[in-house]
Amino acid sequence: MTGTGDFDRLWADLEPVGRDPGSGGYRRFAWTREDSVLREWFAAAAAARGLEVTIDRAGNQWAWWGDPDAGPGVVVGSHLDSVPDGGAFDGPLGVISAFAALDELRAAGRVLAHPVGVVNFGDEEGARFGVACAGSRLLTGALTPERALALRDGDSVTMAEAMKRAGADPGAAGRDDETLRRVGVFIELHIEQGRGLADLGRPVAVGSSIWPHGRWRFTLDGEANHAGTTRLADRRDPMLDLATAIVRARELAGDYGVLATCGKVLVEPGGVNAIPARVTGWLDARGADPAAVRAMVAEFDAGLASGSLAGPSLVRSALTEESWTDATAFDSYLVSRMSALLDAPVLATGAGHDAGILANAGVPAAMLFVRNPTGVSHSPAEHAHRDDCLHGVRALAAVLRDLAC
Amino acid sequence: MTGTGDFDRLWADLEPVGRDPGSGGYRRFAWTREDSVLREWFAAAAAARGLEVTIDRAGNQWAWWGDPDAGPGVVVGSHLDSVPDGGAFDGPLGVISAFAALDELRAAGRVLAHPVGVVNFGDEEGARFGVACAGSRLLTGALTPERALALRDGDSVTMAEAMKRAGADPGAAGRDDETLRRVGVFIELHIEQGRGLADLGRPVAVGSSIWPHGRWRFTLDGEANHAGTTRLADRRDPMLDLATAIVRARELAGDYGVLATCGKVLVEPGGVNAIPARVTGWLDARGADPAAVRAMVAEFDAGLASGSLAGPSLVRSALTEESWTDATAFDSYLVSRMSALLDAPVLATGAGHDAGILANAGVPAAMLFVRNPTGVSHSPAEHAHRDDCLHGVRALAAVLRDLAC
Repeated sequence: MTGTGDFDRLWADLEPVGRDPGSGGYRRFAWTREDSVLREWFAAAAAARGLEVTIDRAGNQWAWWGDPDAGPGVVVGSHLDSVPDGGAFDGPLGVISAFAALDELRAAGRVLAHPVGVVNFGDEEGARFGVACAGSRLLTGALTPERALALRDGDSVTMAEAMKRAGADPGAAGRDDETLRRVGVFIELHIEQGRGLADLGRPVAVGSSIWPHGRWRFTLDGEANHAGTTRLADRRDPMLDLATAIVRARELAGDYGVLATCGKVLVEPGGVNAIPARVTGWLDARGADPAAVRAMVAEFDAGLASGSLAGPSLVRSALTEESWTDATAFDSYLVSRMSALLDAPVLATGAGHDAGILANAGVPAAMLFVRNPTGVSHSPAEHAHRDDCLHGVRALAAVLRDLAC
Repeated sequence: MTGTGDFDRLWADLEPVGRDPGSGGYRRFAWTREDSVLREWFAAAAAARGLEVTIDRAGNQWAWWGDPDAGPGVVVGSHLDSVPDGGAFDGPLGVISAFAALDELRAAGRVLAHPVGVVNFGDEEGARFGVACAGSRLLTGALTPERALALRDGDSVTMAEAMKRAGADPGAAGRDDETLRRVGVFIELHIEQGRGLADLGRPVAVGSSIWPHGRWRFTLDGEANHAGTTRLADRRDPMLDLATAIVRARELAGDYGVLATCGKVLVEPGGVNAIPARVTGWLDARGADPAAVRAMVAEFDAGLASGSLAGPSLVRSALTEESWTDATAFDSYLVSRMSALLDAPVLATGAGHDAGILANAGVPAAMLFVRNPTGVSHSPAEHAHRDDCLHGVRALAAVLRDLAC
């Protein structure tokens, strides 16, 4: 026995779903056809193991080994959706490893002292509706159903409508205490999204905390006009202010020792021969120190508002906070216990996770990270070696043995 | 008699077609449902006047008063499509004024010495498939059917497929000598796209020439990565190079005394929490002096290629010319004759037009411009006063009387 269950078959079955043949990356967005196929895969993996599947009020899937109402359970899992052109590991590795770790326990004839659950959290990346971890936030009440259901995708389809089209019931959406009661502990295994383990030369780490992070949207309103007939001096071109904002965000990130990224812009109307009427940009900022992140964004905002980023500007600007998540510390007892059990290093991360949402809702939670040799993430080039993935499965099985048996 | 035919009714019937209720601008793109409604409007306006409508091999519509094969005709008209969120005047004013000028001649009982045609050129703005004046370019052979039919819109639909869906025959597309033989002279009336007439305090001008102009596409290839976990120093973020390119294009435009605009960008994958893999930008550049435009673009390209725009860059870049149109001089005899007849000033323009495509194909052509008080164009705010529009109709009727009666 390799001690890694049915990892390879689970991986092979999931691999083609939502993969773009051009980029080689994944486009697995919430409440789409691809998402339905992912959910069918999850249900089939559970059925093949005789596990009962329940769906909570937020649409997340839970596969239970043992009676989930027999006592607080030990839950493992992650998410199956992706960012646009994301990699194969971010999310799916945690769900596949969860099933494979269960396989290992069962193959070894382990008897459960507590029920064990495998979870697939929906819409973790927020790629379609703009709010990350929407499934776990809805579950815990951190996101209200009123706000969630009114979110719109790029085609102005609301989440409520998207859920309906996918056969889900938006009317049921909301905090789900019945499901939360079942979760005694949540452990999320995830590919590392930096080079911490690669630098240490180790295959697996325990996650200690998530940096505070936020998303801001800034709008730059100029005046649409003809590119071929409007004198340079007569222009109110918001694209120039966007350029200054992008450069300034990077400079300020360096000054404050935080990370800042502009990864998405929307230019309206977006004609080659038209000076834009409006440009919308998004700023992602994070760091170990929340005060430094806040100060960096405040200075960015002040520069936009005064026009001082680009000198006095004729363009009107505004900054809106789309989300803010404080620093999240995982359960310190769990982190110490897992680190000792696995003889594994402890690492913080700058990426948000469902485990962080559950931790903030009072659920004892922690993470396991699997080595990423290049650190590349949110890209088709994201990769972990199979040996390290199998190491992760064995680590997760060891944690389950420790906590659930 | 006001001498302006049925201008108001023609305007009122056309006004709602393809208008976006949100922006108030027009979205009239080639071979769409809106385009079909525009074509029905044209056919109905012709039918109401007892004019025979023909459609050429490029899909352009021609309404003839008199036998078009009885001798070279005098053609007036423009286009009905729009840029994204375009104004109501750019294009339609020329077609409406053409019908209204015919109405005036007929109401005055004028007898034709030459057939008179009204034309609706398709896909002038190139908003959907990226090539401006596609209808007139196909007609004259400046654009081959092979290239045209393979062009793709933002949803990867080819022009061939779009034509088929709209009930047109892509197999017939190509240079149309039979139609071209009928066009002895082409006069296009158009709203001015700058403030030349406003500065002069005059309602109507004769167009003398079109500046040379071109479109270039530049790609910036970086490395997709996670916004929350990738150290600033490890990033290859093409968004920073985009910012530098936008600013540099504007600086170089000033240095060379030309116009340069970045009105469209595409960020891939475009996730808020992802460092982009690739950014594509488009550069529109024009000016009175073709050498200055070329030199400006060459310096922009050199900066991109060497990375010297933003200092040494880890991002790979490339510039591709999408189109180039040399300076176009309208027929000098026509320009002098019309200017004298109307006692109107003569103006050049930086905007491309179907009249320029026909002029380059050897058709004697000229334009009439109607005052635009703000100079705003390619925007919902584009406007011309009704009195000036009616002045334009009377001027066009006077030209028709002079050339066709």
